[in-house]
Amino acid sequence: MLLTPKDPDWEARVRSSFARQPFMATLGARMTHLAPGAVDLEIELRDDLTQQHGYFHAGATSSIADSAAGYAALSLFPAGSGVLTSEYKINLLNPAKAPTLVARGRVIKPGRTLTIARGDVYGLEENGQVHVATGLFTLMCLEGLND
Amino acid sequence: MLLTPKDPDWEARVRSSFARQPFMATLGARMTHLAPGAVDLEIELRDDLTQQHGYFHAGATSSIADSAAGYAALSLFPAGSGVLTSEYKINLLNPAKAPTLVARGRVIKPGRTLTIARGDVYGLEENGQVHVATGLFTLMCLEGLND
Amino acid sequence: MLLTPKDPDWEARVRSSFARQPFMATLGARMTHLAPGAVDLEIELRDDLTQQHGYFHAGATSSIADSAAGYAALSLFPAGSGVLTSEYKINLLNPAKAPTLVARGRVIKPGRTLTIARGDVYGLEENGQVHVATGLFTLMCLEGLND
Amino acid sequence: MLLTPKDPDWEARVRSSFARQPFMATLGARMTHLAPGAVDLEIELRDDLTQQHGYFHAGATSSIADSAAGYAALSLFPAGSGVLTSEYKINLLNPAKAPTLVARGRVIKPGRTLTIARGDVYGLEENGQVHVATGLFTLMCLEGLND
Repeated sequence: MLLTPKDPDWEARVRSSFARQPFMATLGARMTHLAPGAVDLEIELRDDLTQQHGYFHAGATSSIADSAAGYAALSLFPAGSGVLTSEYKINLLNPAKAPTLVARGRVIKPGRTLTIARGDVYGLEENGQVHVATGLFTLMCLEGLND
Repeated sequence: MLLTPKDPDWEARVRSSFARQPFMATLGARMTHLAPGAVDLEIELRDDLTQQHGYFHAGATSSIADSAAGYAALSLFPAGSGVLTSEYKINLLNPAKAPTLVARGRVIKPGRTLTIARGDVYGLEENGQVHVATGLFTLMCLEGLND
Repeated sequence: MLLTPKDPDWEARVRSSFARQPFMATLGARMTHLAPGAVDLEIELRDDLTQQHGYFHAGATSSIADSAAGYAALSLFPAGSGVLTSEYKINLLNPAKAPTLVARGRVIKPGRTLTIARGDVYGLEENGQVHVATGLFTLMCLEGLND
Repeated sequence: MLLTPKDPDWEARVRSSFARQPFMATLGARMTHLAPGAVDLEIELRDDLTQQHGYFHAGATSSIADSAAGYAALSLFPAGSGVLTSEYKINLLNPAKAPTLVARGRVIKPGRTLTIARGDVYGLEENGQVHVATGLFTLMCLEGLND
């Protein structure tokens, strides 16, 4: 599927919005890939992001999956609009104990009002990657929100 | 529905596990209610939990909903077992801009292996509460995990 | 929550749309309750609706939950608009082996574009009801579709 | 991912269980592909499967997605066990108005108790296929159920 941005300034807009999300800074999230309809976010294992067994908390895992999906959608929205997560569902497939997690947000159905994206989270280990979570996200385009 | 804990020590076990989740401390979450199959968690609006418009990030909202549902389930599990979120789905209903968010996790179907819980998040404002999010959570009981 | 229909003719419109859904006739579904934002649909256990163990097939259970949620939403939409299920999630809680299933669709957040509803399915037995399934549904209002 | 059946008789078992689901016959569903962890089901557009605009009812679309995912999971289960849908979530992406719908169930994470599968539905048209729906399914393995 060929995904074409409507806003010539899409790249700067996505990066600027991401930079203004304090919660992403709290998680230490970095945007490591950005293309039309596709965003990767990465976080590193740190004590303050864990649950009681030392793995990433499902809340941290889900948060980067949600943001990756949201920014993948925003990259396709027209200028002067913002993005809102309407709903999502996520399955946690394997323990998130790798030193690095990457969340890959990919638009599967762009739309004027609603955009559907997949969000997959992988644990990056020395010998390969583990599929930590898979989710489906519904993102809403809000005109005049100006993300 | 009458929900009966299997572990006489359920209350101490839930509180102790919650206290050992660093990510909950990162969010500043407090457990404000605990009963068999029911847990409330609260967080306060702080800059480091927000998205680009100054509201709670959906990731923070979802994280406390997930933990509230998870601990509601754990309260009913037998001694020597732990809880894992298998999957969840959440609808974000209204902007989360209240000074305090409360997540109410309530078990709707306990089970030996799988427990289903509802998780609702409300914004507590001076004049009442706003329904911020509603979700359904599948929690898994893991013997020998010892949460 | 007080839910007020926007179309004075809402009741006739919902009943007429339901009557024109051939698949609901295939399932033998009857609308047994209709109020603003609330619809109940019932089906009877018949061989052709079952899975391999003689219970209602999850597909039949989900279909009436979806339609009940959809018509609950349509009851609040303005004249000249139609309803579309954008997405849903359903948890199957107990075997659906009662002689009658009732699906209760209830709007929890009405909206101009998106309406969120809960859909619960119960098995009606001699001594009470069993909670068969619970779901969350996102319904979209389409102007000019004229359901 | 290499998926290996545990039951040498997996193929006959899946086909036999499918043949004993009366609701699949009601929908006219045919199994057009079967491999370890992968099942395709097809249905033809018929009046009795439609909603009020002549398209496939979302209930029919979801039912074959659910069954395709369920049988994809069952193909990997040990002998003497059965499959149950624990929960699923589905996004309806495009109107289902093609003459034929195919649901492709694919296991993405096999497990002893829980198996996660994707289910995608496509409309087969003369010039190609339309992505009608995408979903995530949690299937449970029940020992002694003997599907």
